[in-house]
Amino acid sequence: MTYVHGYTDRETRRLLEQSLILEELLHSGTRYNEGSRVLEAGCGVGAQTLIIARRNPGIELISMDISLASVSKAESMVHQAGYRNVTFLQGDIYKSGFGHASFDHIFVCFLLEHLSDPLGALLIMKSLLRKGGTITVIEGDHGTGVWSPETEASRLAWDGLIRSQLYLGHDPFIGRRLFPLLDSAGFRNIDVTPRPVYSDRSNPELLDGVVNRIITPMVLSAGERVMGQQLLTRESWEKGLKDISSVASTGEGSFFYTWFKGCGIRL
Amino acid sequence: MTYVHGYTDRETRRLLEQSLILEELLHSGTRYNEGSRVLEAGCGVGAQTLIIARRNPGIELISMDISLASVSKAESMVHQAGYRNVTFLQGDIYKSGFGHASFDHIFVCFLLEHLSDPLGALLIMKSLLRKGGTITVIEGDHGTGVWSPETEASRLAWDGLIRSQLYLGHDPFIGRRLFPLLDSAGFRNIDVTPRPVYSDRSNPELLDGVVNRIITPMVLSAGERVMGQQLLTRESWEKGLKDISSVASTGEGSFFYTWFKGCGIRL
Repeated sequence: MTYVHGYTDRETRRLLEQSLILEELLHSGTRYNEGSRVLEAGCGVGAQTLIIARRNPGIELISMDISLASVSKAESMVHQAGYRNVTFLQGDIYKSGFGHASFDHIFVCFLLEHLSDPLGALLIMKSLLRKGGTITVIEGDHGTGVWSPETEASRLAWDGLIRSQLYLGHDPFIGRRLFPLLDSAGFRNIDVTPRPVYSDRSNPELLDGVVNRIITPMVLSAGERVMGQQLLTRESWEKGLKDISSVASTGEGSFFYTWFKGCGIRL
Repeated sequence: MTYVHGYTDRETRRLLEQSLILEELLHSGTRYNEGSRVLEAGCGVGAQTLIIARRNPGIELISMDISLASVSKAESMVHQAGYRNVTFLQGDIYKSGFGHASFDHIFVCFLLEHLSDPLGALLIMKSLLRKGGTITVIEGDHGTGVWSPETEASRLAWDGLIRSQLYLGHDPFIGRRLFPLLDSAGFRNIDVTPRPVYSDRSNPELLDGVVNRIITPMVLSAGERVMGQQLLTRESWEKGLKDISSVASTGEGSFFYTWFKGCGIRL
Protein backbone atom coordinates (compact mmCIF):
# COMPACT_ATOMS: atom_id res chain seq x y z
CA MET A 1 0.00 0.00 0.00
CA THR A 2 1.08 3.58 -0.66
CA TYR A 3 0.37 6.12 2.08
CA VAL A 4 -0.52 9.48 0.55
CA HIS A 5 1.07 11.37 3.47
CA GLY A 6 4.38 9.49 3.35
CA TYR A 7 6.62 8.22 6.16
CA THR A 8 8.69 11.23 7.21
CA ASP A 9 9.58 12.32 10.76
CA ARG A 10 7.40 15.34 10.21
CA GLU A 11 4.44 13.08 9.41
CA THR A 12 5.14 11.02 12.55
CA ARG A 13 5.04 14.21 14.62
CA ARG A 14 1.83 15.30 12.90
CA LEU A 15 0.13 12.00 13.67
CA LEU A 16 1.14 12.14 17.34
CA GLU A 17 0.05 15.74 17.82
CA GLN A 18 -3.17 15.18 15.89
CA SER A 19 -4.09 12.20 18.02
CA LEU A 20 -3.80 14.18 21.26
CA ILE A 21 -5.70 17.19 19.93
CA LEU A 22 -8.52 14.96 18.74
CA GLU A 23 -8.49 12.40 21.56
CA GLU A 24 -11.83 13.23 23.17
CA LEU A 25 -13.49 13.88 19.83
CA LEU A 26 -12.54 10.52 18.36
CA HIS A 27 -12.24 8.19 21.38
CA SER A 28 -15.28 9.23 23.40
CA GLY A 29 -17.71 6.33 23.47
CA THR A 30 -15.02 3.67 23.02
CA ARG A 31 -14.22 1.64 26.11
CA TYR A 32 -13.12 -2.01 26.19
CA ASN A 33 -13.62 -4.32 29.16
CA GLU A 34 -10.62 -5.62 31.07
CA GLY A 35 -9.34 -8.83 29.61
CA SER A 36 -10.60 -8.06 26.09
CA ARG A 37 -8.39 -9.03 23.20
CA VAL A 38 -8.34 -6.05 20.84
CA LEU A 39 -6.79 -5.75 17.39
CA GLU A 40 -5.71 -2.33 16.17
CA ALA A 41 -5.48 -2.72 12.40
CA GLY A 42 -3.18 -0.17 10.77
CA CYS A 43 -1.57 1.27 13.88
CA GLY A 44 0.99 3.28 11.91
CA VAL A 45 3.45 5.05 14.23
CA GLY A 46 1.29 4.29 17.29
CA ALA A 47 -0.47 7.62 17.65
CA GLN A 48 -3.82 5.99 18.49
CA THR A 49 -2.20 2.95 20.15
CA LEU A 50 -0.92 5.14 22.95
CA ILE A 51 -4.39 6.50 23.58
CA ILE A 52 -6.15 3.12 23.40
CA ALA A 53 -3.62 1.63 25.83
CA ARG A 54 -4.03 4.53 28.28
CA ARG A 55 -7.85 4.64 28.13
CA ASN A 56 -8.35 0.88 28.31
CA PRO A 57 -6.19 -0.56 31.04
CA GLY A 58 -6.28 -4.31 31.33
CA ILE A 59 -6.95 -5.11 27.70
CA GLU A 60 -4.63 -7.16 25.55
CA LEU A 61 -3.90 -4.96 22.56
CA ILE A 62 -2.41 -6.30 19.34
CA SER A 63 -1.36 -3.45 17.07
CA MET A 64 -0.42 -4.22 13.49
CA ASP A 65 0.78 -2.23 10.51
CA ILE A 66 2.08 -3.10 7.08
CA SER A 67 5.08 -0.77 7.50
CA LEU A 68 7.87 -2.29 9.60
CA ALA A 69 9.43 1.14 10.13
CA SER A 70 6.15 2.47 11.53
CA VAL A 71 5.59 -0.53 13.78
CA SER A 72 9.12 -0.13 15.16
CA LYS A 73 8.54 3.53 15.94
CA ALA A 74 5.21 2.67 17.53
CA GLU A 75 6.69 -0.08 19.65
CA SER A 76 9.55 1.97 21.04
CA MET A 77 7.28 4.92 21.77
CA VAL A 78 4.54 2.92 23.47
CA HIS A 79 7.01 0.90 25.54
CA GLN A 80 8.86 4.08 26.46
CA ALA A 81 5.54 5.47 27.69
CA GLY A 82 5.35 2.49 30.04
CA TYR A 83 2.59 0.41 28.49
CA ARG A 84 3.32 -3.30 28.62
CA ASN A 85 0.00 -4.69 27.37
CA VAL A 86 0.57 -3.99 23.68
CA THR A 87 2.03 -6.46 21.20
CA PHE A 88 3.25 -5.03 17.91
CA LEU A 89 3.28 -6.93 14.65
CA GLN A 90 4.29 -6.12 11.14
CA GLY A 91 1.66 -7.58 8.86
CA ASP A 92 -0.85 -7.18 6.07
CA ILE A 93 -4.51 -7.20 7.11
CA TYR A 94 -5.37 -9.04 3.88
CA LYS A 95 -3.19 -12.00 4.90
CA SER A 96 -2.56 -11.62 8.62
CA GLY A 97 -2.52 -15.24 9.74
CA PHE A 98 -4.72 -14.45 12.75
CA GLY A 99 -7.15 -17.20 13.57
CA HIS A 100 -10.85 -17.02 12.78
CA ALA A 101 -12.82 -15.34 15.60
CA SER A 102 -9.68 -14.59 17.56
CA PHE A 103 -10.53 -11.05 18.72
CA ASP A 104 -13.19 -9.45 20.92
CA HIS A 105 -12.85 -6.06 19.29
CA ILE A 106 -11.16 -4.41 16.33
CA PHE A 107 -10.18 -0.75 16.21
CA VAL A 108 -9.42 0.97 12.90
CA CYS A 109 -8.47 4.63 12.58
CA PHE A 110 -7.51 6.44 9.36
CA LEU A 111 -6.86 3.15 7.55
CA LEU A 112 -9.71 2.43 5.11
CA GLU A 113 -9.21 5.76 3.34
CA HIS A 114 -5.74 4.57 2.34
CA LEU A 115 -6.76 1.14 0.98
CA SER A 116 -7.74 0.10 -2.54
CA ASP A 117 -10.30 -2.39 -1.23
CA PRO A 118 -11.80 -1.16 2.05
CA LEU A 119 -14.77 -3.54 1.82
CA GLY A 120 -12.41 -6.50 1.41
CA ALA A 121 -10.51 -5.38 4.51
CA LEU A 122 -13.73 -5.13 6.53
CA LEU A 123 -14.82 -8.61 5.44
CA ILE A 124 -11.52 -10.02 6.63
CA MET A 125 -11.72 -8.12 9.90
CA LYS A 126 -15.23 -9.45 10.47
CA SER A 127 -13.90 -12.99 10.15
CA LEU A 128 -11.30 -12.19 12.84
CA LEU A 129 -14.00 -11.16 15.33
CA ARG A 130 -15.74 -13.59 17.63
CA LYS A 131 -19.55 -13.61 17.51
CA GLY A 132 -20.75 -10.56 19.42
CA GLY A 133 -17.42 -8.82 18.87
CA THR A 134 -17.36 -5.21 17.73
CA ILE A 135 -15.54 -3.12 15.17
CA THR A 136 -14.86 0.60 15.52
CA VAL A 137 -13.84 2.54 12.43
CA ILE A 138 -12.82 6.20 12.35
CA GLU A 139 -12.24 7.88 9.00
CA GLY A 140 -12.26 11.42 7.67
CA ASP A 141 -14.14 12.93 4.75
CA HIS A 142 -12.23 15.62 2.92
CA GLY A 143 -15.46 16.82 1.31
CA THR A 144 -16.52 18.35 4.63
CA GLY A 145 -13.49 20.62 5.12
CA VAL A 146 -14.18 24.37 4.98
CA TRP A 147 -12.29 27.34 6.33
CA SER A 148 -12.23 31.10 6.40
CA PRO A 149 -10.72 32.97 4.67
CA GLU A 150 -10.92 30.41 1.88
CA THR A 151 -8.73 31.72 -0.92
CA GLU A 152 -8.78 30.09 -4.33
CA ALA A 153 -5.15 28.97 -3.83
CA SER A 154 -5.97 27.30 -0.50
CA ARG A 155 -8.89 25.41 -2.07
CA LEU A 156 -6.66 24.29 -4.96
CA ALA A 157 -4.01 22.97 -2.54
CA TRP A 158 -6.68 21.06 -0.60
CA ASP A 159 -8.09 19.68 -3.86
CA GLY A 160 -4.53 18.67 -4.80
CA LEU A 161 -4.35 16.50 -1.68
CA ILE A 162 -7.74 14.97 -2.54
CA ARG A 163 -6.78 14.28 -6.13
CA SER A 164 -3.42 12.76 -5.21
CA GLN A 165 -5.27 10.35 -2.91
CA LEU A 166 -7.87 9.52 -5.59
CA TYR A 167 -4.98 9.01 -8.04
CA LEU A 168 -3.69 6.22 -5.77
CA GLY A 169 -7.11 4.57 -6.00
CA HIS A 170 -7.94 5.51 -2.40
CA ASP A 171 -11.00 7.35 -1.09
CA PRO A 172 -10.58 10.69 0.71
CA PHE A 173 -14.41 10.85 0.91
CA ILE A 174 -14.85 7.55 2.72
CA GLY A 175 -16.41 9.01 5.89
CA ARG A 176 -19.83 9.33 4.29
CA ARG A 177 -19.58 5.68 3.14
CA LEU A 178 -18.87 4.08 6.53
CA PHE A 179 -22.46 2.98 7.02
CA PRO A 180 -22.88 1.29 3.62
CA LEU A 181 -19.40 -0.28 3.89
CA LEU A 182 -20.02 -1.74 7.36
CA ASP A 183 -23.46 -2.85 6.21
CA SER A 184 -22.14 -4.54 3.07
CA ALA A 185 -19.49 -6.29 5.15
CA GLY A 186 -22.30 -7.82 7.21
CA PHE A 187 -21.90 -5.94 10.48
CA ARG A 188 -25.11 -5.24 12.37
CA ASN A 189 -26.38 -2.64 14.89
CA ILE A 190 -24.29 -0.16 12.94
CA ASP A 191 -24.04 3.31 14.41
CA VAL A 192 -22.20 6.06 12.57
CA THR A 193 -21.75 9.48 14.16
CA PRO A 194 -20.07 12.59 12.75
CA ARG A 195 -17.19 13.87 14.88
CA PRO A 196 -16.80 17.46 13.72
CA VAL A 197 -14.05 19.81 14.80
CA TYR A 198 -14.66 23.53 14.54
CA SER A 199 -12.38 26.24 15.75
CA ASP A 200 -12.05 29.98 15.49
CA ARG A 201 -10.23 32.82 17.21
CA SER A 202 -12.21 32.36 20.41
CA ASN A 203 -9.99 29.31 20.96
CA PRO A 204 -6.62 30.22 19.37
CA GLU A 205 -4.91 27.13 20.77
CA LEU A 206 -7.35 24.74 19.13
CA LEU A 207 -7.36 26.77 15.91
CA ASP A 208 -3.57 26.67 15.80
CA GLY A 209 -3.55 22.97 16.64
CA VAL A 210 -6.04 22.05 13.95
CA VAL A 211 -4.58 24.31 11.27
CA ASN A 212 -0.84 24.14 11.95
CA ARG A 213 -0.43 20.73 13.55
CA ILE A 214 -3.04 18.73 11.61
CA ILE A 215 -4.25 20.28 8.37
CA THR A 216 -1.24 22.21 7.03
CA PRO A 217 1.23 19.35 7.64
CA MET A 218 -1.31 16.95 6.11
CA VAL A 219 -1.52 18.99 2.91
CA LEU A 220 2.25 19.53 3.00
CA SER A 221 2.89 15.80 3.26
CA ALA A 222 1.25 15.18 -0.12
CA GLY A 223 3.26 17.93 -1.80
CA GLU A 224 5.81 15.92 -3.76
CA ARG A 225 3.08 13.55 -4.88
CA VAL A 226 0.90 16.45 -6.03
CA MET A 227 3.86 17.91 -7.90
CA GLY A 228 4.88 14.52 -9.31
CA GLN A 229 1.40 13.92 -10.64
CA GLN A 230 1.40 17.47 -12.03
CA LEU A 231 -1.87 18.21 -10.27
CA LEU A 232 -0.68 21.71 -9.35
CA THR A 233 2.31 23.94 -10.09
CA ARG A 234 4.75 24.31 -7.23
CA GLU A 235 4.02 28.02 -7.04
CA SER A 236 0.27 27.51 -6.81
CA TRP A 237 0.68 24.74 -4.24
CA GLU A 238 3.03 26.78 -2.04
CA LYS A 239 0.70 29.76 -2.15
CA GLY A 240 -2.21 27.52 -1.16
CA LEU A 241 -0.29 25.99 1.70
CA LYS A 242 0.65 29.44 2.98
CA ASP A 243 -2.97 30.56 2.78
CA ILE A 244 -4.19 27.51 4.71
CA SER A 245 -1.60 28.07 7.41
CA SER A 246 -2.53 31.75 7.70
CA VAL A 247 -6.08 30.75 8.71
CA ALA A 248 -4.67 30.29 12.21
CA SER A 249 -3.15 33.75 12.44
CA THR A 250 -5.88 36.03 11.11
CA GLY A 251 -8.79 37.38 13.11
CA GLU A 252 -11.14 36.08 10.43
CA GLY A 253 -9.80 32.56 10.76
CA SER A 254 -12.00 29.53 11.23
CA PHE A 255 -11.68 25.87 10.31
CA PHE A 256 -14.23 23.06 10.14
CA TYR A 257 -13.73 19.38 9.31
CA THR A 258 -15.60 16.18 10.10
CA TRP A 259 -14.45 12.69 10.86
CA PHE A 260 -16.95 9.85 11.07
CA LYS A 261 -16.93 7.10 13.65
CA GLY A 262 -18.75 3.88 12.86
CA CYS A 263 -19.36 0.92 15.15
CA GLY A 264 -20.87 -2.43 14.34
CA ILE A 265 -21.26 -5.90 15.80
CA ARG A 266 -20.54 -9.28 14.27
CA LEU A 267 -23.66 -11.26 15.05
CA MET B 1 -33.78 41.51 -1.24
CA THR B 2 -34.12 38.48 -3.50
CA TYR B 3 -34.60 35.09 -1.83
CA VAL B 4 -32.79 32.40 -3.78
CA HIS B 5 -35.39 29.78 -2.83
CA GLY B 6 -38.39 31.89 -3.87
CA TYR B 7 -41.82 32.30 -2.25
CA THR B 8 -43.87 29.32 -3.41
CA ASP B 9 -46.23 27.17 -1.33
CA ARG B 10 -43.80 24.34 -1.74
CA GLU B 11 -41.02 26.47 -0.20
CA THR B 12 -43.34 27.40 2.68
CA ARG B 13 -43.97 23.71 3.33
CA ARG B 14 -40.24 22.99 3.12
CA LEU B 15 -39.43 25.66 5.68
CA LEU B 16 -42.05 24.39 8.12
CA GLU B 17 -41.02 20.74 7.82
CA GLN B 18 -37.32 21.63 7.99
CA SER B 19 -37.81 23.63 11.17
CA LEU B 20 -39.47 20.72 12.99
CA ILE B 21 -36.91 18.14 11.80
CA LEU B 22 -34.08 20.38 12.96
CA GLU B 23 -35.68 21.83 16.09
CA GLU B 24 -33.47 20.23 18.72
CA LEU B 25 -30.35 20.58 16.59
CA LEU B 26 -30.78 24.31 16.08
CA HIS B 27 -32.69 25.49 19.17
CA SER B 28 -30.91 23.56 21.91
CA GLY B 29 -29.10 26.05 24.12
CA THR B 30 -31.46 28.92 23.35
CA ARG B 31 -33.83 29.87 26.17
CA TYR B 32 -35.16 33.35 26.92
CA ASN B 33 -36.35 34.46 30.33
CA GLU B 34 -39.99 35.31 30.88
CA GLY B 35 -40.70 38.93 30.17
CA SER B 36 -37.85 39.29 27.68
CA ARG B 37 -38.49 41.38 24.61
CA VAL B 38 -37.12 39.39 21.66
CA LEU B 39 -36.78 40.40 18.01
CA GLU B 40 -36.83 37.71 15.35
CA ALA B 41 -35.26 39.37 12.32
CA GLY B 42 -36.24 37.74 9.04
CA CYS B 43 -39.02 35.49 10.29
CA GLY B 44 -40.13 34.47 6.79
CA VAL B 45 -43.23 32.27 6.88
CA GLY B 46 -42.88 31.78 10.64
CA ALA B 47 -41.21 28.34 10.67
CA GLN B 48 -38.86 29.30 13.51
CA THR B 49 -41.34 31.73 15.08
CA LEU B 50 -43.62 28.85 16.02
CA ILE B 51 -40.76 27.04 17.74
CA ILE B 52 -39.44 30.11 19.58
CA ALA B 53 -42.95 30.92 20.83
CA ARG B 54 -43.51 27.34 22.02
CA ARG B 55 -40.11 26.93 23.69
CA ASN B 56 -40.06 30.34 25.36
CA PRO B 57 -43.41 30.98 27.03
CA GLY B 58 -43.82 34.39 28.55
CA ILE B 59 -41.55 36.31 26.21
CA GLU B 60 -42.71 39.18 24.06
CA LEU B 61 -41.71 38.17 20.53
CA ILE B 62 -41.60 40.65 17.67
CA SER B 63 -41.15 38.85 14.36
CA MET B 64 -40.32 40.87 11.27
CA ASP B 65 -39.77 40.11 7.62
CA ILE B 66 -39.34 42.20 4.49
CA SER B 67 -41.94 40.14 2.62
CA LEU B 68 -45.53 41.11 3.47
CA ALA B 69 -46.81 37.85 2.00
CA SER B 70 -44.50 35.83 4.26
CA VAL B 71 -45.37 37.84 7.36
CA SER B 72 -49.08 37.33 6.65
CA LYS B 73 -48.61 33.58 6.33
CA ALA B 74 -46.55 33.54 9.51
CA GLU B 75 -49.12 35.56 11.42
CA SER B 76 -52.09 33.41 10.48
CA MET B 77 -50.19 30.18 11.17
CA VAL B 78 -48.82 31.26 14.55
CA HIS B 79 -52.13 32.68 15.71
CA GLN B 80 -53.93 29.56 14.50
CA ALA B 81 -51.50 27.54 16.62
CA GLY B 82 -52.73 29.52 19.61
CA TYR B 83 -49.76 31.75 20.39
CA ARG B 84 -50.81 35.24 21.41
CA ASN B 85 -47.42 36.67 22.47
CA VAL B 86 -46.09 37.29 18.95
CA THR B 87 -46.38 40.56 17.06
CA PHE B 88 -45.73 40.45 13.34
CA LEU B 89 -44.37 43.35 11.35
CA GLN B 90 -43.48 43.85 7.72
CA GLY B 91 -40.22 45.77 7.64
CA ASP B 92 -36.65 46.10 6.47
CA ILE B 93 -33.96 45.41 9.08
CA TYR B 94 -31.81 48.15 7.52
CA LYS B 95 -34.49 50.77 8.31
CA SER B 96 -36.79 49.24 10.87
CA GLY B 97 -37.69 52.27 12.95
CA PHE B 98 -37.13 50.34 16.19
CA GLY B 99 -35.65 52.42 18.99
CA HIS B 100 -32.03 52.16 20.05
CA ALA B 101 -31.52 49.45 22.68
CA SER B 102 -35.14 48.36 22.53
CA PHE B 103 -34.63 44.58 22.67
CA ASP B 104 -33.22 42.10 25.19
CA HIS B 105 -32.45 39.50 22.57
CA ILE B 106 -32.34 39.11 18.81
CA PHE B 107 -32.80 35.81 17.00
CA VAL B 108 -31.74 35.38 13.38
CA CYS B 109 -32.07 32.15 11.43
CA PHE B 110 -31.20 31.63 7.76
CA LEU B 111 -31.20 35.38 7.08
CA LEU B 112 -27.61 36.63 6.73
CA GLU B 113 -26.88 34.15 3.94
CA HIS B 114 -29.54 35.91 1.85
CA LEU B 115 -28.31 39.49 2.39
CA SER B 116 -25.85 41.56 0.38
CA ASP B 117 -24.48 43.23 3.50
CA PRO B 118 -24.64 40.82 6.46
CA LEU B 119 -22.16 42.86 8.51
CA GLY B 120 -24.28 46.00 8.04
CA ALA B 121 -27.32 44.07 9.24
CA LEU B 122 -25.46 42.85 12.35
CA LEU B 123 -24.31 46.39 13.17
CA ILE B 124 -27.88 47.63 13.03
CA MET B 125 -29.09 44.70 15.13
CA LYS B 126 -26.44 45.45 17.72
CA SER B 127 -27.76 48.98 18.03
CA LEU B 128 -31.24 47.58 18.66
CA LEU B 129 -29.98 45.54 21.65
CA ARG B 130 -29.79 46.87 25.17
CA LYS B 131 -26.43 46.59 26.90
CA GLY B 132 -26.02 42.99 28.00
CA GLY B 133 -28.50 41.85 25.37
CA THR B 134 -27.68 38.83 23.19
CA ILE B 135 -27.86 37.90 19.56
CA THR B 136 -28.28 34.35 18.25
CA VAL B 137 -27.52 33.67 14.60
CA ILE B 138 -28.04 30.35 12.81
CA GLU B 139 -26.78 29.97 9.24
CA GLY B 140 -25.79 27.10 6.98
CA ASP B 141 -22.62 26.51 5.02
CA HIS B 142 -23.16 24.77 1.71
CA GLY B 143 -19.45 23.89 1.57
CA THR B 144 -19.99 21.25 4.25
CA GLY B 145 -22.66 19.24 2.42
CA VAL B 146 -21.67 15.73 1.37
CA TRP B 147 -23.70 12.64 0.56
CA SER B 148 -23.45 9.09 -0.68
CA PRO B 149 -23.76 8.07 -3.42
CA GLU B 150 -22.49 11.39 -4.72
CA THR B 151 -22.93 11.30 -8.49
CA GLU B 152 -21.39 13.97 -10.68
CA ALA B 153 -24.88 15.17 -11.63
CA SER B 154 -25.93 15.55 -7.99
CA ARG B 155 -22.79 17.58 -7.22
CA LEU B 156 -23.45 19.81 -10.25
CA ALA B 157 -27.04 20.47 -9.13
CA TRP B 158 -25.82 21.36 -5.62
CA ASP B 159 -23.15 23.62 -7.12
CA GLY B 160 -25.87 25.21 -9.26
CA LEU B 161 -27.73 26.20 -6.08
CA ILE B 162 -24.51 27.61 -4.64
CA ARG B 163 -23.68 29.57 -7.78
CA SER B 164 -27.18 30.98 -8.12
CA GLN B 165 -26.89 32.32 -4.55
CA LEU B 166 -23.42 33.75 -5.21
CA TYR B 167 -24.83 35.31 -8.40
CA LEU B 168 -27.28 37.28 -6.25
CA GLY B 169 -24.34 38.61 -4.23
CA HIS B 170 -25.26 36.43 -1.24
CA ASP B 171 -23.06 33.99 0.68
CA PRO B 172 -23.97 30.28 0.79
CA PHE B 173 -20.71 29.71 2.74
CA ILE B 174 -21.52 32.17 5.52
CA GLY B 175 -21.54 29.59 8.36
CA ARG B 176 -17.76 29.53 8.60
CA ARG B 177 -17.77 33.35 8.80
CA LEU B 178 -20.15 33.76 11.73
CA PHE B 179 -17.36 34.31 14.23
CA PRO B 180 -15.51 37.01 12.25
CA LEU B 181 -18.81 38.70 11.31
CA LEU B 182 -20.07 38.84 14.91
CA ASP B 183 -16.62 39.96 16.02
CA SER B 184 -16.42 42.72 13.41
CA ALA B 185 -19.88 43.91 14.41
CA GLY B 186 -18.56 44.39 17.95
CA PHE B 187 -20.30 41.55 19.76
CA ARG B 188 -18.37 39.97 22.62
CA ASN B 189 -18.23 36.56 24.37
CA ILE B 190 -18.89 35.09 20.95
CA ASP B 191 -19.50 31.38 20.86
CA VAL B 192 -19.97 29.58 17.55
CA THR B 193 -20.83 25.87 17.46
CA PRO B 194 -21.34 23.60 14.49
CA ARG B 195 -24.74 21.94 14.37
CA PRO B 196 -24.21 19.01 12.04
CA VAL B 197 -26.91 16.69 10.79
CA TYR B 198 -25.93 13.22 9.61
CA SER B 199 -28.26 10.48 8.58
CA ASP B 200 -28.08 7.08 6.95
CA ARG B 201 -30.25 4.02 6.51
CA SER B 202 -30.09 3.20 10.21
CA ASN B 203 -32.56 6.08 10.61
CA PRO B 204 -34.65 6.06 7.41
CA GLU B 205 -37.10 8.63 8.75
CA LEU B 206 -34.38 11.21 9.42
CA LEU B 207 -32.65 10.39 6.12
CA ASP B 208 -35.91 10.87 4.25
CA GLY B 209 -36.67 14.07 6.17
CA VAL B 210 -33.27 15.60 5.49
CA VAL B 211 -33.06 14.50 1.85
CA ASN B 212 -36.66 14.78 0.67
CA ARG B 213 -38.09 17.48 2.92
CA ILE B 214 -35.07 19.78 3.27
CA ILE B 215 -32.32 19.29 0.71
CA THR B 216 -34.12 18.20 -2.46
CA PRO B 217 -36.82 20.89 -2.19
CA MET B 218 -34.09 23.45 -1.40
CA VAL B 219 -32.18 22.58 -4.57
CA LEU B 220 -35.47 22.39 -6.50
CA SER B 221 -36.49 25.86 -5.33
CA ALA B 222 -33.49 27.42 -7.07
CA GLY B 223 -34.18 25.59 -10.33
CA GLU B 224 -35.67 28.36 -12.44
CA ARG B 225 -32.95 30.72 -11.26
CA VAL B 226 -30.24 28.19 -12.12
CA MET B 227 -31.78 27.73 -15.55
CA GLY B 228 -32.32 31.45 -16.04
CA GLN B 229 -28.67 32.18 -15.26
CA GLN B 230 -27.69 29.30 -17.57
CA LEU B 231 -25.61 27.70 -14.83
CA LEU B 232 -26.79 24.22 -15.85
CA THR B 233 -28.85 22.66 -18.63
CA ARG B 234 -32.32 21.54 -17.60
CA GLU B 235 -31.44 17.94 -18.35
CA SER B 236 -28.33 18.02 -16.18
CA TRP B 237 -30.15 19.77 -13.37
CA GLU B 238 -33.07 17.35 -13.41
CA LYS B 239 -30.72 14.37 -13.38
CA GLY B 240 -28.86 15.88 -10.41
CA LEU B 241 -32.05 16.52 -8.51
CA LYS B 242 -33.20 12.95 -9.10
CA ASP B 243 -29.84 11.64 -7.88
CA ILE B 244 -29.96 13.73 -4.71
CA SER B 245 -33.48 12.55 -3.96
CA SER B 246 -32.48 8.92 -4.52
CA VAL B 247 -29.95 9.19 -1.66
CA ALA B 248 -32.92 8.58 0.65
CA SER B 249 -34.06 5.38 -1.07
CA THR B 250 -30.83 3.45 -1.61
CA GLY B 251 -29.13 1.26 0.96
CA GLU B 252 -25.89 3.18 0.36
CA GLY B 253 -27.53 6.50 1.18
CA SER B 254 -26.10 8.97 3.66
CA PHE B 255 -26.28 12.73 3.99
CA PHE B 256 -24.21 15.19 6.02
CA TYR B 257 -24.59 18.96 6.36
CA THR B 258 -23.61 21.53 8.97
CA TRP B 259 -25.32 24.63 10.20
CA PHE B 260 -23.48 27.00 12.53
CA LYS B 261 -24.99 28.71 15.54
CA GLY B 262 -23.32 31.83 16.86
CA CYS B 263 -24.16 33.78 20.00
CA GLY B 264 -22.75 37.07 21.21
CA ILE B 265 -23.41 39.79 23.74
CA ARG B 266 -23.60 43.52 23.30
CA LEU B 267 -21.43 44.83 26.12
